[in-house]
Amino acid sequence: MKRSEIASAQKRAIEMLAEAGIAITEKEKQELEVADFGLGRLETEGLEIVIYANNDRYCAKELVLFPFQTCPQHMHPPVEGRQGKQETFRCRKGEVYLYVPGNPVASPKAKPPTEYYTVLHEIVLKPGDQYTLAPETLHWFQAGSEGGIVSEFSSPSVDEADIFTDPNVKRIPVIED
Amino acid sequence: MKRSEIASAQKRAIEMLAEAGIAITEKEKQELEVADFGLGRLETEGLEIVIYANNDRYCAKELVLFPFQTCPQHMHPPVEGRQGKQETFRCRKGEVYLYVPGNPVASPKAKPPTEYYTVLHEIVLKPGDQYTLAPETLHWFQAGSEGGIVSEFSSPSVDEADIFTDPNVKRIPVIED
Repeated sequence: MKRSEIASAQKRAIEMLAEAGIAITEKEKQELEVADFGLGRLETEGLEIVIYANNDRYCAKELVLFPFQTCPQHMHPPVEGRQGKQETFRCRKGEVYLYVPGNPVASPKAKPPTEYYTVLHEIVLKPGDQYTLAPETLHWFQAGSEGGIVSEFSSPSVDEADIFTDPNVKRIPVIED
Repeated sequence: MKRSEIASAQKRAIEMLAEAGIAITEKEKQELEVADFGLGRLETEGLEIVIYANNDRYCAKELVLFPFQTCPQHMHPPVEGRQGKQETFRCRKGEVYLYVPGNPVASPKAKPPTEYYTVLHEIVLKPGDQYTLAPETLHWFQAGSEGGIVSEFSSPSVDEADIFTDPNVKRIPVIED
């Protein structure tokens, strides 16, 4: 990603958070993470993240999704003898469609962007709805037409350990000047 | 507390959450916890709580404080060989004054309701501000004139183990008909 693309995505995410009445500090705005997963198509597959806390006991983040933006399918494996990450997604604004293993719905609300999306049991999250994922559960999610904001409460996050179904994903972004 | 007092406090907390744009489900509204800490003066010393998640790995809650309402001084001890609860308070709405051990401020913004408030190092939390408390840190907090809403991210919560400075506190409420 180019720095200009990151700056533009940060600005857009900051505006969405403000519209939702979610206050963040100037430092959080500057450090707001823009993840394109190394795929180079941020609008389709990407995620914007504010990390509130990530210590050795718990983690809390705000996840921002642009309209129809998708977080690619992945799971959280055990790390250094610790259980995989367990996480609760709580929708704060917009609609978010979450997919996990199980019976696929007949007419999914989200369209998988590539062939690397294999779990299709749908959970619809509207503001106030939440869902807890057990460790090592494959999952992906996509926002509806208005985008979405999701609070993530979890055990500690070790993003670089995440296992993505798409072999082209690079979780830690490469920034070009 | 009488059921009518609980219902009235729930209604008020639900309205404050709605004003802040924080969506909660019907079930969460019904189960919204009203804690008077057994002191019988909810307006002065009390707290309204929505528990989003509390499992064996992490906990997340929304804390609602009416104007000038105070959560009494307490700390979280080790429980069954596990470290005491560590918690991050993030202000979402209003102003909240948090007090911990350390140099007392000359003119505190909050007025301790009783003599059982002994730590007076002040941290002012406005929307977007947060503070992380190490385990076993004595603390108390009070909202400003508009009340306050605080997201709490933490290690698992074992409320009944909390140690309050005021010997009259009963953390688990007694409900009268």
